[in-house]
Amino acid sequence: MKASVFVGTSLDGFIARNDGTFDFLPAGGGEPHGYTEFMATVDALVIGRHTFDTVAAFDAWPYAKPVFVLSSRALSPTLPGVLVERLAGPPAVVVAELAARGIAHIYVDGGITIQRFLEAGLIDRLIVTRVPVLIGTGIPLFGAVSRDVLLTHVATRQYASGLVQSEYAVRAGSRAAGDVPALVECETRPGSDASPDAESR
Amino acid sequence: MKASVFVGTSLDGFIARNDGTFDFLPAGGGEPHGYTEFMATVDALVIGRHTFDTVAAFDAWPYAKPVFVLSSRALSPTLPGVLVERLAGPPAVVVAELAARGIAHIYVDGGITIQRFLEAGLIDRLIVTRVPVLIGTGIPLFGAVSRDVLLTHVATRQYASGLVQSEYAVRAGSRAAGDVPALVECETRPGSDASPDAESR
Repeated sequence: MKASVFVGTSLDGFIARNDGTFDFLPAGGGEPHGYTEFMATVDALVIGRHTFDTVAAFDAWPYAKPVFVLSSRALSPTLPGVLVERLAGPPAVVVAELAARGIAHIYVDGGITIQRFLEAGLIDRLIVTRVPVLIGTGIPLFGAVSRDVLLTHVATRQYASGLVQSEYAVRAGSRAAGDVPALVECETRPGSDASPDAESR
Repeated sequence: MKASVFVGTSLDGFIARNDGTFDFLPAGGGEPHGYTEFMATVDALVIGRHTFDTVAAFDAWPYAKPVFVLSSRALSPTLPGVLVERLAGPPAVVVAELAARGIAHIYVDGGITIQRFLEAGLIDRLIVTRVPVLIGTGIPLFGAVSRDVLLTHVATRQYASGLVQSEYAVRAGSRAAGDVPALVECETRPGSDASPDAESR
């Protein structure tokens, strides 16, 4: 299965302000920069709880594809017809679960979720669009990694409004963790609430 | 006077590791990406104490232009013929001092120094070259700003080795501080060691 990130950041690397707002990103997504085309290639989204709570408060649900929310707590209700499912467990278990369901390409979104998947060596492609502003503080796109993550630059595109989008492939050899736990590992403890893996079943 | 930044960073925005090393940057500056051409346009460098101590330990002094080091402490000796002078005081005072000496274009380098000059609204141009690697932690290029710093994208260049260089102009209206103190302000207290301004005289 392939996992991609498609995200906008300030030039200093923040995906949102500390309060979760992102008024520094161009309204409505700004000048077209490939989001629609990218979204057409994914089968599902995997987002974190913070991102879910943010988008659940929007006037309209923004995703036309199934959304898997990583959380240990029950989700707030969403609009009718919205495809949302809660999962939990480490990234490798989530990926194995979704692959077992026949999902071939996931869009991983949200700062903490992106960081966890990167650290687990489970992101294949990064598409980062920089907005020409420094905001100084906020929720960072990237976080700690246990060792250098080497990337291969695929392409950079620039847009009239000042957006600069760079696409990178994560080099397989540089991925941090890696071993995907066997699915049986979480299937053997389906009733244990103490096990975060159990919640992904 | 014009002030520019020309700097290489990891994709996650670090100019060096926490110990000051920058082995993740391509050796010898990597594929030519405009450093020589940029350096030809500057009259002098303004660097911080950390940067000075780092480059002073190199086998060869890397700068052919005069270097002003911002520090309150005396500098370690440098090689004969090397043009180095210590200055102190807030960025606006340093800029006024250098402008008074007829310097028209400074190259501001070093994480803390870049951040101080950005916060003071004294950087005109940012040229940031991204290396395709995530290192997770280190000395960041950017830091806190008291308000958004709006930028205008000038150009982005990509190189075969994977370097991506984006050039931005800082929009004058978005600059944070701004008022350049009159030079007389520091000339009236030349003997005060307690005044950081005094050291720039």
